[in-house]
Amino acid sequence: MTTTSEIPRRVRLVEVGPRDGLQNEKQPISVADKVRLVDDLTAAGVRYIEVGSFVSPKWVPQMAGSADVFAQIKQNPGVTYAALTPNLKGLEAAIEAGVSEVAVFGAASEAFSQKNINCSIDESLARFAPLMSAARENGIQVRGYVSCVLGCPYEGDIDPARVAHVAHELFAMGCYEVSLGDTIGTGTPGKTRQLFDLVSRTVPRDKLAGHFHDTYGQAMANIYASLQEGICTFDSSVAGLGGCPYAKGASGNVASEDVLYMLNGLGIETGIDLDSLIAAGQRISDVLGRPNGSRVSRARLSAQ
Amino acid sequence: MTTTSEIPRRVRLVEVGPRDGLQNEKQPISVADKVRLVDDLTAAGVRYIEVGSFVSPKWVPQMAGSADVFAQIKQNPGVTYAALTPNLKGLEAAIEAGVSEVAVFGAASEAFSQKNINCSIDESLARFAPLMSAARENGIQVRGYVSCVLGCPYEGDIDPARVAHVAHELFAMGCYEVSLGDTIGTGTPGKTRQLFDLVSRTVPRDKLAGHFHDTYGQAMANIYASLQEGICTFDSSVAGLGGCPYAKGASGNVASEDVLYMLNGLGIETGIDLDSLIAAGQRISDVLGRPNGSRVSRARLSAQ
Repeated sequence: MTTTSEIPRRVRLVEVGPRDGLQNEKQPISVADKVRLVDDLTAAGVRYIEVGSFVSPKWVPQMAGSADVFAQIKQNPGVTYAALTPNLKGLEAAIEAGVSEVAVFGAASEAFSQKNINCSIDESLARFAPLMSAARENGIQVRGYVSCVLGCPYEGDIDPARVAHVAHELFAMGCYEVSLGDTIGTGTPGKTRQLFDLVSRTVPRDKLAGHFHDTYGQAMANIYASLQEGICTFDSSVAGLGGCPYAKGASGNVASEDVLYMLNGLGIETGIDLDSLIAAGQRISDVLGRPNGSRVSRARLSAQ
Repeated sequence: MTTTSEIPRRVRLVEVGPRDGLQNEKQPISVADKVRLVDDLTAAGVRYIEVGSFVSPKWVPQMAGSADVFAQIKQNPGVTYAALTPNLKGLEAAIEAGVSEVAVFGAASEAFSQKNINCSIDESLARFAPLMSAARENGIQVRGYVSCVLGCPYEGDIDPARVAHVAHELFAMGCYEVSLGDTIGTGTPGKTRQLFDLVSRTVPRDKLAGHFHDTYGQAMANIYASLQEGICTFDSSVAGLGGCPYAKGASGNVASEDVLYMLNGLGIETGIDLDSLIAAGQRISDVLGRPNGSRVSRARLSAQ
């Protein structure tokens, strides 16, 4: 609680709206609308965009057109356009689509791993091995996610040592960065700091990212707490896509605009223009006919 | 940014829902419903409740029944039941109603003061003088509010030195505590810390409180930042009353439940039972037919 590290001067925001956000939408979304969203984000100055995923459309129908989206977006050379790939088959499809970076998804909770990907944590890590080799051979960087790092819907509290173990395994097998996800949003700032403090003993702080959900209203405080632990990469979702703010028990990706507003106030550089980001978020919200999940956007747009 | 103070072990939450919250509701609310809310809050372990205000019903019709509310609530000896009183006339009515503590309301913005109470900041402070004397004579404690401490809808940025001046004036004239209000919710954690650092040079930290609005999604981060500045009293509103979470540009009192959840996670004692507080907030939300503004409550209640 008494860490005195300076907060970072520069933060990298990983925009997960087009993938993590849209995959949870019930209604169909056209390839054109997805392309427009990614292009809007590029124009706003976002440097990392998770565009889609290469998974079975049987499981995630919303991501069926990811290859088409990759083919049609205007790629800016300074921007990373990434895709989630659960296995070697997904990686191969991603490579074919011209993806420059992929992400893999592990869990810190044994029960969550079993219920969601039908195997143990260790089995899931073992399954990544051929993907990691193939990615390396093709010059594709791999980012790792760990879910349930501050709580699990089935197990409750999660031992931070387990998170550290999974994060280290992903890092050791070649993930250049590991994003720690508070999937159910139950984390609070003190536990967030303790977690990063522990995990950073085996994975360097500048190779860690924070992925917070606002389900319990804690995401912004957790991000501020993480900054104080020297974490300088955060995942967020434009317009809060992926968690409807008006639904009971909304799952709640933290809104990129709200995070950016805080970072701007803290004098932290991101390279992203807030007004353009707000416009991008409102545009996709209008397309989806859903309320804008960013409080900054709602406040700004209602004041106009 | 490198303050190393330990965060407080105990925090006092000042519940402003029945006053600051309900006064902004458009629909009529019965005295019985207000009494039930206050009694529910008492039962949940809240130790400070701002019950109502003694102002002209012409300006704030929602507060017309405050004397009746005070007469009917079950007062617990360990709990402070306070009222907002803008002037001597209000104080006299409050004393007659049996109020044990009152609050006065100043601004750090000259334009806000002029537009809202039709006089300068200095004039508003001078007007409090007879109220302060009368309160002292009647053994009534007075709490001071300063609004617009981190931004003003008319002036924009506010000089922290001005906040410090107004806070010190209120403290010097006898307010036992001064609550600094981010009325429009534009504050961010670094500026919050700088503000408390400056103001605490003339008013002791344990005589300061934080009053944050979540309009821009910054309230929780600002509260966590304030804790690190040694602030141990926060105003909040059960169910986020006073700022409709579903309206465009919601004004946004931070929800007591969300603050309490964070404090619980940080191991900070408040004496308040979260489940009872959630029940109190859902009950008044049902009465008002409005969505519950607490994300903790929405998450918890949807999981049942």
